[in-house]
Amino acid sequence: MPTVGGVLETALYVEDLDRSVTFYRDLFGFEELLRDDRMAALSVAGRNVLLLFRKGGSTRPTETPGGDIPPHDGNGNLHLAFGIAAEDLEPWELFLAEKGVAIESKVQAPRGGHSLYFRDPDGHCVEVATPGLWAIY
Amino acid sequence: MPTVGGVLETALYVEDLDRSVTFYRDLFGFEELLRDDRMAALSVAGRNVLLLFRKGGSTRPTETPGGDIPPHDGNGNLHLAFGIAAEDLEPWELFLAEKGVAIESKVQAPRGGHSLYFRDPDGHCVEVATPGLWAIY
Repeated sequence: MPTVGGVLETALYVEDLDRSVTFYRDLFGFEELLRDDRMAALSVAGRNVLLLFRKGGSTRPTETPGGDIPPHDGNGNLHLAFGIAAEDLEPWELFLAEKGVAIESKVQAPRGGHSLYFRDPDGHCVEVATPGLWAIY
Repeated sequence: MPTVGGVLETALYVEDLDRSVTFYRDLFGFEELLRDDRMAALSVAGRNVLLLFRKGGSTRPTETPGGDIPPHDGNGNLHLAFGIAAEDLEPWELFLAEKGVAIESKVQAPRGGHSLYFRDPDGHCVEVATPGLWAIY
């Protein structure tokens, strides 16, 4: 049985690409890997890729020289979480306040990890979490 | 400016939790970290967490002893990608065929990485990709 090495790409669907790219770059410093009218790809700490797709912009196959990328699209207020170091919890709280991003909730997991929840410009539910949230983290 | 260490959790919203857990466990061997009526959490290679949420099951805050998890929900055919080793591309093709999962598209990226695209039971657009897809991968 072949294996996978981890999550490579996670995707959000957004109303306004510029607005979302600005939000994620300003707040997290993610480097832009690709940007066109349909999408943006941001590097998350050089480990994963956060894909931002313009809502409704990928409902047909995307033709590329190497083959067609199948259609996909999404709606709603999706959830994703980024890992942070335990010692960065307070700096993150201060930084979010400084950036005018309201913390919607602070949660302590049974294993001891701490999470901060806030919204991106589309109302997606973004979490930053310290170790102690999952058995593997 | 505080940093993040990577994507910890990525989420899909599904019609039938049992069906989706079975799909992802059978195909990828992901270990179950948590399972209740609302959601399942699966370990992706011990590095990331794939969250499967029952559609419509998280539209109110989820009360926990350590604080309330904010609401979120999603619709559509979302996209996510898992990284695989270059030498696992052909084994993945064979394994998908063996499992009766149709490959919707095979794509070669300009940098040389190869991707296989297929659908999960909700029509989410799942990709497995070898290195050479992004500048960071």
